[in-house]
Amino acid sequence: MKGQTIYFKNKPKIISTATIAGPKECCGILGKYVDCALTDDMFGEKTFERAERKMLLYAVEKCIAKAELKTEDIDIFLSGDLLNQIISASFTARELKIPFLGIYSACSTMSEGLLLGSVLTDGGFAKTVVAATGSHFSSAERQYRFPLEQGTTRPPQSQWTVTGAGSALLSLKGKGPCITCATVGRVMDFGVSDVNNMGAAMAPAAADTILAHFRDTGKTPKDYDLILTGDLGALGGKIVEDLVWEKGVDISENHVDCGEIVYDVREDEFQGGSGAGCCASVFNSYIYDKMTHGSGIRKVLFAATGALLSTVSSGQGETIPCVSHAVVVENQ
Amino acid sequence: MKGQTIYFKNKPKIISTATIAGPKECCGILGKYVDCALTDDMFGEKTFERAERKMLLYAVEKCIAKAELKTEDIDIFLSGDLLNQIISASFTARELKIPFLGIYSACSTMSEGLLLGSVLTDGGFAKTVVAATGSHFSSAERQYRFPLEQGTTRPPQSQWTVTGAGSALLSLKGKGPCITCATVGRVMDFGVSDVNNMGAAMAPAAADTILAHFRDTGKTPKDYDLILTGDLGALGGKIVEDLVWEKGVDISENHVDCGEIVYDVREDEFQGGSGAGCCASVFNSYIYDKMTHGSGIRKVLFAATGALLSTVSSGQGETIPCVSHAVVVENQ
Repeated sequence: MKGQTIYFKNKPKIISTATIAGPKECCGILGKYVDCALTDDMFGEKTFERAERKMLLYAVEKCIAKAELKTEDIDIFLSGDLLNQIISASFTARELKIPFLGIYSACSTMSEGLLLGSVLTDGGFAKTVVAATGSHFSSAERQYRFPLEQGTTRPPQSQWTVTGAGSALLSLKGKGPCITCATVGRVMDFGVSDVNNMGAAMAPAAADTILAHFRDTGKTPKDYDLILTGDLGALGGKIVEDLVWEKGVDISENHVDCGEIVYDVREDEFQGGSGAGCCASVFNSYIYDKMTHGSGIRKVLFAATGALLSTVSSGQGETIPCVSHAVVVENQ
Repeated sequence: MKGQTIYFKNKPKIISTATIAGPKECCGILGKYVDCALTDDMFGEKTFERAERKMLLYAVEKCIAKAELKTEDIDIFLSGDLLNQIISASFTARELKIPFLGIYSACSTMSEGLLLGSVLTDGGFAKTVVAATGSHFSSAERQYRFPLEQGTTRPPQSQWTVTGAGSALLSLKGKGPCITCATVGRVMDFGVSDVNNMGAAMAPAAADTILAHFRDTGKTPKDYDLILTGDLGALGGKIVEDLVWEKGVDISENHVDCGEIVYDVREDEFQGGSGAGCCASVFNSYIYDKMTHGSGIRKVLFAATGALLSTVSSGQGETIPCVSHAVVVENQ
């Protein structure tokens, strides 16, 4: 580890990914790239929470099947989600019966999973690791904000939690883009307490990790075809560009935010998408497809960012601490 | 990885631990062994949640100081807790400014932290990792069950969430008991839905991991001076002994449960202690002291167990999925 950055000598590969997303999400870019485009965001279930975990289970099972493996072939399942006590991940792990390590990093769960999965496979501790996460607009909304039935007005700085899930299978054997290094984030808090303004709260954490990454590795933004942040949204995406620019780093040329591109932004979503399922579904479908089908995107710095608040912490007057973990994914 | 078990070639050492516990807890064995015995379970704070995170911060800072290191010397902080969105861990990470990976495994968070910390140090990804967790009776009670003011009657199968925190510092350099292998648990659910009977819900997960450990390693209970489960309590402790006995493994001779020994059991606690802080404070104080002071306890199988429910999952009629992760800690 140099600074905050870990290097992977054996370059674990993402040999398979799978994704699923809701009807609203599939009106945008995800529609063409997900393995399953839902026409019913309840996925045939009675509750939002059950629909959420069914999506996660689908993404994991599909990902394993696409690699022509079985669940018994997977050594470790790494997952977490936004719901209290990560019940989506835990209940999915109950179905899968794969040894399970629960992680929590809010909307940066996907990159934490890829990071720890790389550590486990690169170090020879596990041969195959599946990292996955997801979210559901309706379960998140009622847990974090208000019951949907209340019809609360959403402010213009708000984002829309993505209904979707994504999964990635890591192994040293097989083909696929590899993970060459990862930067572990520190928890940052710039004093934002508005729970409807996640982009502004999370941008400083993304900036801190991106700057740490360039400092540790000696690389510059030009070394990457794409710097992909996770669900900062349109406003947060602009803030992170400004914050790193103030430190002499210009990422504006090749920076894209998953939250900003996930929807064809209409009025409802305001700043774009958010939620653990946002970058999980965008990275594992659209971006993975671009990397594996010769689009010219060969080297990606994927820095997902999570807001580590709870309704209790906000209710007690706390500001919103955030963290961002970055992984470098590249074709070699 | 063989079966569910990971081996650590470089044998990461627990070079330092620190613990803190509440006044009720310090009436029992913890009183003699913790670094800080609180006389006020609010720890001078206005809310239970703030007291909980202050305990966690104390445990981490004290642990680092006891190793004669500074927070800047620590590569990674691994932590999680019982509160929604692991706010105790996240807010502690905000103060520490150490790169932070959030984990969630309910009451088995301590062993998941030691497991992942061993992976990170053994594989050369990090030089120093701190793994820590904690819990607070009052914050857990109002989140999972009822407001304290309601004075709800506790049934005889219930346990008492420990007010306390514990921290361990892992490194390949330095002195201390080492971690030689770890068994990653699968999520088990035997259909228990009584949220007041965690011991019965968790025992099958502990049994599954203990049996997997012996199957993978070819070892027997006699190879260990102590098989330490985490907070199954008196009832759950008996159930796990029965469950493994049915599979031909007798752990009754050297099995001890942290939940069973943490209190001088009086009426209030019924089956004993629970909560992420239970085995974290017992293992990192009492057990670590025994291992490092020539008590004859040289080889310990530490299998903490977590119940992965939430109030939403229980409210929706779900049973309680549980997981147990085991680490082997030994003097060499």
